[in-house]
Amino acid sequence: MKLAFIRSAYGSLRVHPARPGSRLSGLSRRCLPPVGATDSRVILRTVSATSSSGTRPKLTVDFGKQPEKEDGSECGSSVSEVIQSTKEAMVSLQGRNPAIQPLLAILQAGEDDDVLQINKKMAGKIGLNVTHICLTKGCSEDEIVEELLKLNDDPRVHGVFLHLPSTSLTSRVLNALKPEKDVDGITDLNMGRLVRGDLSNSFVPPIASAVLDLLEKHDAPLEGKTVLLVGGEGPLCLALQCLIERSGMVALKSHWNSNVLQRQVMQADAMVLLDGVNVDVPPSWIRPGAAIICCEPTLETDEHTFGMSSKSGLGYLTAAYRTHNVVRSCSRWLREQQYRPWRLHSLKLQPLTPVPSDIEISRAQTPKPVTQLAEEIGLLPEELEAYGRNKAKVRLSLLDRLHSQPDGKYVLVAGITPTPLGEGKSTVTIGLVQAMSAHLKHNSFACLRQPSQGPTFGVKGGAAGGGYAQVIPMEEFNLHLTGDIHAITAANNLVAAAIDARMLHEATQSDKALFNRLVPSVNGVRSFSPIQISRLRRLGIFKTDPAALSMQEISTFVRLDLDPSKITWQRVVDTNDRFLRKITVGQASTEKGQIRETGFDIAVASEIMAILALADSLEDMKNRLARMVVGTSRSGQPVTAEDLGVSGALAVLMKDAIKPTLMQTLEGSPVFVHAGPFANIAHGNSSVLADKLALKLVGRDGFVVTEAGFGADIGMEKFFNIKCRASGLRPNVVVLVATVRALKMHGGGPNVSAGAPLPREYIDENLSLVAGGCRSNLKKQIQIAHLFGVPVVVALNVFKTDTQAEIDLVCQIAKECGASDAVPCHHWAQGGRGSVELAKAVDEAANRPSNFQFLYNTEMPIVEKIRTIARKVYGADDVELSPEAKSKIDYYNQQGYGSLPICMAKTHLSLSHMPEKKGAPTGFVLPIRDVRASVGAGFIYPLVGTMSTMPGLPTRPCFYDIDLDPVTEEITGLF
Amino acid sequence: MKLAFIRSAYGSLRVHPARPGSRLSGLSRRCLPPVGATDSRVILRTVSATSSSGTRPKLTVDFGKQPEKEDGSECGSSVSEVIQSTKEAMVSLQGRNPAIQPLLAILQAGEDDDVLQINKKMAGKIGLNVTHICLTKGCSEDEIVEELLKLNDDPRVHGVFLHLPSTSLTSRVLNALKPEKDVDGITDLNMGRLVRGDLSNSFVPPIASAVLDLLEKHDAPLEGKTVLLVGGEGPLCLALQCLIERSGMVALKSHWNSNVLQRQVMQADAMVLLDGVNVDVPPSWIRPGAAIICCEPTLETDEHTFGMSSKSGLGYLTAAYRTHNVVRSCSRWLREQQYRPWRLHSLKLQPLTPVPSDIEISRAQTPKPVTQLAEEIGLLPEELEAYGRNKAKVRLSLLDRLHSQPDGKYVLVAGITPTPLGEGKSTVTIGLVQAMSAHLKHNSFACLRQPSQGPTFGVKGGAAGGGYAQVIPMEEFNLHLTGDIHAITAANNLVAAAIDARMLHEATQSDKALFNRLVPSVNGVRSFSPIQISRLRRLGIFKTDPAALSMQEISTFVRLDLDPSKITWQRVVDTNDRFLRKITVGQASTEKGQIRETGFDIAVASEIMAILALADSLEDMKNRLARMVVGTSRSGQPVTAEDLGVSGALAVLMKDAIKPTLMQTLEGSPVFVHAGPFANIAHGNSSVLADKLALKLVGRDGFVVTEAGFGADIGMEKFFNIKCRASGLRPNVVVLVATVRALKMHGGGPNVSAGAPLPREYIDENLSLVAGGCRSNLKKQIQIAHLFGVPVVVALNVFKTDTQAEIDLVCQIAKECGASDAVPCHHWAQGGRGSVELAKAVDEAANRPSNFQFLYNTEMPIVEKIRTIARKVYGADDVELSPEAKSKIDYYNQQGYGSLPICMAKTHLSLSHMPEKKGAPTGFVLPIRDVRASVGAGFIYPLVGTMSTMPGLPTRPCFYDIDLDPVTEEITGLF
Repeated sequence: MKLAFIRSAYGSLRVHPARPGSRLSGLSRRCLPPVGATDSRVILRTVSATSSSGTRPKLTVDFGKQPEKEDGSECGSSVSEVIQSTKEAMVSLQGRNPAIQPLLAILQAGEDDDVLQINKKMAGKIGLNVTHICLTKGCSEDEIVEELLKLNDDPRVHGVFLHLPSTSLTSRVLNALKPEKDVDGITDLNMGRLVRGDLSNSFVPPIASAVLDLLEKHDAPLEGKTVLLVGGEGPLCLALQCLIERSGMVALKSHWNSNVLQRQVMQADAMVLLDGVNVDVPPSWIRPGAAIICCEPTLETDEHTFGMSSKSGLGYLTAAYRTHNVVRSCSRWLREQQYRPWRLHSLKLQPLTPVPSDIEISRAQTPKPVTQLAEEIGLLPEELEAYGRNKAKVRLSLLDRLHSQPDGKYVLVAGITPTPLGEGKSTVTIGLVQAMSAHLKHNSFACLRQPSQGPTFGVKGGAAGGGYAQVIPMEEFNLHLTGDIHAITAANNLVAAAIDARMLHEATQSDKALFNRLVPSVNGVRSFSPIQISRLRRLGIFKTDPAALSMQEISTFVRLDLDPSKITWQRVVDTNDRFLRKITVGQASTEKGQIRETGFDIAVASEIMAILALADSLEDMKNRLARMVVGTSRSGQPVTAEDLGVSGALAVLMKDAIKPTLMQTLEGSPVFVHAGPFANIAHGNSSVLADKLALKLVGRDGFVVTEAGFGADIGMEKFFNIKCRASGLRPNVVVLVATVRALKMHGGGPNVSAGAPLPREYIDENLSLVAGGCRSNLKKQIQIAHLFGVPVVVALNVFKTDTQAEIDLVCQIAKECGASDAVPCHHWAQGGRGSVELAKAVDEAANRPSNFQFLYNTEMPIVEKIRTIARKVYGADDVELSPEAKSKIDYYNQQGYGSLPICMAKTHLSLSHMPEKKGAPTGFVLPIRDVRASVGAGFIYPLVGTMSTMPGLPTRPCFYDIDLDPVTEEITGLF
Repeated sequence: MKLAFIRSAYGSLRVHPARPGSRLSGLSRRCLPPVGATDSRVILRTVSATSSSGTRPKLTVDFGKQPEKEDGSECGSSVSEVIQSTKEAMVSLQGRNPAIQPLLAILQAGEDDDVLQINKKMAGKIGLNVTHICLTKGCSEDEIVEELLKLNDDPRVHGVFLHLPSTSLTSRVLNALKPEKDVDGITDLNMGRLVRGDLSNSFVPPIASAVLDLLEKHDAPLEGKTVLLVGGEGPLCLALQCLIERSGMVALKSHWNSNVLQRQVMQADAMVLLDGVNVDVPPSWIRPGAAIICCEPTLETDEHTFGMSSKSGLGYLTAAYRTHNVVRSCSRWLREQQYRPWRLHSLKLQPLTPVPSDIEISRAQTPKPVTQLAEEIGLLPEELEAYGRNKAKVRLSLLDRLHSQPDGKYVLVAGITPTPLGEGKSTVTIGLVQAMSAHLKHNSFACLRQPSQGPTFGVKGGAAGGGYAQVIPMEEFNLHLTGDIHAITAANNLVAAAIDARMLHEATQSDKALFNRLVPSVNGVRSFSPIQISRLRRLGIFKTDPAALSMQEISTFVRLDLDPSKITWQRVVDTNDRFLRKITVGQASTEKGQIRETGFDIAVASEIMAILALADSLEDMKNRLARMVVGTSRSGQPVTAEDLGVSGALAVLMKDAIKPTLMQTLEGSPVFVHAGPFANIAHGNSSVLADKLALKLVGRDGFVVTEAGFGADIGMEKFFNIKCRASGLRPNVVVLVATVRALKMHGGGPNVSAGAPLPREYIDENLSLVAGGCRSNLKKQIQIAHLFGVPVVVALNVFKTDTQAEIDLVCQIAKECGASDAVPCHHWAQGGRGSVELAKAVDEAANRPSNFQFLYNTEMPIVEKIRTIARKVYGADDVELSPEAKSKIDYYNQQGYGSLPICMAKTHLSLSHMPEKKGAPTGFVLPIRDVRASVGAGFIYPLVGTMSTMPGLPTRPCFYDIDLDPVTEEITGLF
């Protein structure tokens, strides 16, 4: 009697669900030889008809006709077919992404064995990378879980093979494995998915695929055949049963001691033995031609049996399917990261009339957990650092992961020259993204500035948008957020403390004492720190041994020799504290009379904020921080943060701040909040990094909408000439925000001021004022955008007092003036639905050719650059420089700052320098009072008039109404 | 022919795994009537033998003998038995926790129906609460998921019944449900767990329980019986199959169109019909006595059929089992929250010799994700607010949830009078908790202070412990952490800005102008804000109409009339900025000459920090913030933050800071980092709230180890008299940290100072110096702890230069002096393993009786309280008050602050006021130079000498070595 088995040691997996009716994608259903065919490639043996001899042999292993080669390559076509198909999948995968390298991690406890060898060889055949973690045989559950968690977190690992004793495969261990990497299909979640038929998110256990393959080889077609599963319990058995049934077969189950075993064995076309095999079954029971497949469920069989069995076909086939699952896992992982329309869950808005207060609207909407939002937009969990439920920082590693992904469309929201009340650029930005995301289903992202916290308690209130176009929760947006401004404050003030302390120490110590303290002997060794070596290099001293310096060199090195009257670095607080505008410091006796006058700015006016907004990597930020000039030495040399020895510490303080913060709009669209430099003394735009991350996340067909501060003459001009120059990004569309109110003002309407009631002209219809404003300021701002070669869509932010005739007139004239389109927007009252027309117009304009060009070449002389902006953008006849401005420019040229771009510090209330001149003034000469430089941020800023860098508190600041309910934790009074 | 079916509409669940071999806990296996018994309670009909008439009737519904009563109560004993058992489970549950109220949420789309009614009635019978969410029939997947997520997050909901059309039960919907609330057992994870046999974490689908029950009723014992499942696919079928098999039955599966259907039907002892029932089956196929159970899988049958079927037994039984699962879910939830030994995963330490730098040790260990740590210590996900991967804030709602849980043991770590180098209280605290958690497997928690960031860049370095007893990642601990100190800075400086701005506005405006601005007319209505009404009350004005105030009252109300020379409020920065110690503000022309002298303190010296440390709820914090006195009016009245109108805004700024931050030690034990008030001008202890949360989390047999600043004479005394008084908590053990170095100093060794090399006496063995120190300072500090009635364990922090004889001597004398025990600790070099002896000694001491008592009654006169501390604690003969101190005390008595506890501001370098007096000085009179009050924090602080509240930067601050690798993001140079 010949009774042959296909046996397999498939590792020590106790849990083995099996495979679905539909085969693995990538493996086609093959037509296999009929039963009994002698094709040598068929390894599955059948019991011959003559075996019913009545004797009851033990069901033991018979390896009579085993594969000849040790590597199993001749085991049959199945193995080689699976290998072939897996190789093809690899080729296709690496064709799409040459850098990808699928990796199988093997977590092993105890000695090496044949199963391990087979799996490693198989991986080698396919070209899989393998990482092999060996724990000791008696390792604890904790140790296994710890290793597993590391593998879960390692983005290079695509599949994990738990080659562990069955006693170690506890529920905790099994389910610690990330289902995405569960290529053996052993987790509960995978089992549930498999059973429900969700093949796109599950893995068929390799052993089950192998068994099904053997069954098919033996007896195709499978339809209607009966398979008896004997001796199994639990998931493997049940899943196999499920998959067998899905293949159209009938699955029976039995136990070795069942009293109906004989009847069942006699019925079966095939038997799958799921546990130990040393059981008596009379061959006479077995149907002629029936296949018997034996799955060895444990490593604990004796060495010989195990070794032999592992060389059998099922062992190889299982290993081959495991590699196949790894390639599949890698492919899924890659697909997850590629461009796709988001499956963004929009939050429903049911706008009320009249529109409630901003905080009421914000509070009425429950944001999605930020982890959910992140998943929806394709962020990996390891790229996210949650800050509570509603905010998260996003890691810059995303840029590496998606570097080959094309950017989305880049949209800038700018405005016409505003009234002092503001015309709603932030609400347009948010409303547009709500419309794009929630209504037109485009991937889209808003990038906003983080507001200063000071004014939130002063007069201005928050900056999270308003009405039904807001970032939520608005109180988190407006308060500490994720601490970036606090980090800037800490970094800025560390520089200030270092400046004054250094001046004190230099004033009270000899060169030698300074040198001994700056370069102390530690355990008898004296050496320069890297930051000191940088300073030595800048001083032209290339020695690295402190003992080698001459006295002159020591003196040059230890003395920054700062001129107290030429320190430009101010301290900052994020509070409206007007009494700190001008102060005298150092009056305590401990400071030995080293008093000097200085002042505090509001934190967002710090140069470090401008650097945060312009840096495009951690390294770039660190270099810019080091370059910051804090003042001038008595001999006229610039002194930098690196000279103070503080630039490394600044980078450490800023290392989290460089990661943009993810939040969401009222309708659940993603928003990055990152950086908020002043729009006058700095460039007034949110960060380069947030825009870059967002452009990768939205992908090819998506939109990133970012906002520039002030009117287009300032914010947009700086966006193009400074931010786009730093980032290399090119905008596709400018959205120019206008209001009937501001247009009437430019058309000659009376003065508009905060606090005072609005004159009648602004409430009643007045077409001639509207037309006047359109033909002056609006027209000019459109022309400015066209100077840069970018198409313009005019967004009319509609107020309830605007009449249809006024709205129509604005749109008509805007188009006459060259706008690609002009549409009214109702986002404030209606949310995204109110901006759908704008979104369509932007989409349309983004498909037009954009011929972006800078306004000036940075190599032009500083004065020429200033003149170009004044003439072409502001409409000035010329510029006029004060003597101070002229000498500063000479100094900057001499220091090598001449090729920095220009960041004009000018009023935003007029195209000119005169706030009261509305419309599009001409015939004026722009006076340049002074010129300053932010060398770290990388721009020269000419001052046109005086700029306040520290707001004050009025008699009754906002804080009077701000309160917290200690029970509900609800905040009131924020707006 | 009679052919009766038990039918059920079990909702529209497409996915129905079934139940395990072992029955539901709480439901005993019952002995049921034999087949054919006519017991009227048995509702399951059998096909009579005479039915094999050869005709082939349609398998349609026959409700011939349906239950009589509409509510199904007579459907059979099963329903009432399940109800009874569920009620008993409810009683037992509510007996353990009377407040608990199990709640079933029904999420419905479309109209009400009978299934809904049955489920509601059943819930009513049991006493379950039901919340019912109705969506429209055509609602989107997004809407369903949104509601589901809300139910997931709602801790009141214990089970969710998705009563939705089958088309709505998509994979996304099913798996959005939290498995813990999946009482219908429909999620993939539940299915996987069920199939693997993990019943403690899964739910048996109610329909499956019901089917099994009916089978058992019909034909017990089930063993060996054959059940045919017809017409089903997917999880329900497979799970039922699995459960049937676990009950010892044989499960067969078939389809209506199978060509072996007849054979299978004829074999079956029972048939379960899983899909539509209008199929021809000749009654002749059906075995006499066979049961037929029909599960209706969809709501979409016609109204009549559905209505009828829902009244059948299976419908009621299913509903009953659903309620049972809800009670079970609630019970599990409750158990999760009760005290249990943690399953804490310890991180392995492999200490190196020599011990590497702190940052190297910290970096070499990968912390557990904080979410994992939180789960291990029994925090619910909704109680956690992650800040990145390694830190999280914990919500105070935990205190409500665990309010009935007994507190753990409360251990205070204090120290003998230290050398200027510090004796390692933080490392002892961390090492002790590492030993307790990782080695002795006690639940235990360390509560630490958050260090000021300023000194991290100055001279001191970090404060996360050191060596192998550290909090990790140490750089996150030492830098911004979760922004609490930044929030304190913002709040503190908002008060300062409000003070100066108010003085300016009062100086430049008339009463009327001030009143018009402070109480403006908004839309024609003028009203006081709540904070203004509080001020009016304090002024004795009980009017609420602004128009009703007299001119005198207006003047009193609008003028705080602050005396510029008596403003006690200082600004703060978290930077060592010595030049801000004394400054003049208001020198800009915009401040109109209102200049004054003031200064900045380091942020942790802010009274707001002391408040954060002492507050025991959000409300308490808010009230304390409002009470803070910022200065005195010209008429001598205290002016508070509430008078400034700023207290609500302060509470808003501090609302996140009040939540303690969770981190972990090098060995993975939990640590709370929260608050860090100065140990001289404030009480120097971490927060009351962190201790309270930790005591609940560790539970009855656990330990919370908290640290007091400075020596025991200061930190411990304040811990007892101020912190324990505020919190109501009572300590069980004091751990008194000593070092051979400090003991030698107290025994008469030479001066020890930072920076200078240690004299030989401290390096070589010197038993007489050690004995001298033990018999003076150590003995006195032990006695101080005994004054409060608390047992003392002396922890000798061993340095490598200590000899065994020195160590033995310290331990011997310490015990002679009354310590419960005295043990050497090696945590710095060995981690928790080096502190196991200490942990055992603490455990032992914690079981001794503690007779805690305060040192003084707060009602004693201020001078008497000061004298008591000076005599009993410091060993002074008496106190001597300066005239200024005396007049301040009079003033505070007059203002009603006389019963506040005392917070002495004294050097920590001696028990006396003279830093150079070591050992246990006697025969001195303690001079009290001045007395101040922190009214919001709630203590009076007498000044003994001068205290610096702003550190400075040395010539070469730490920041010279601090750097960040921009590629690896690794920080160097922190220590």
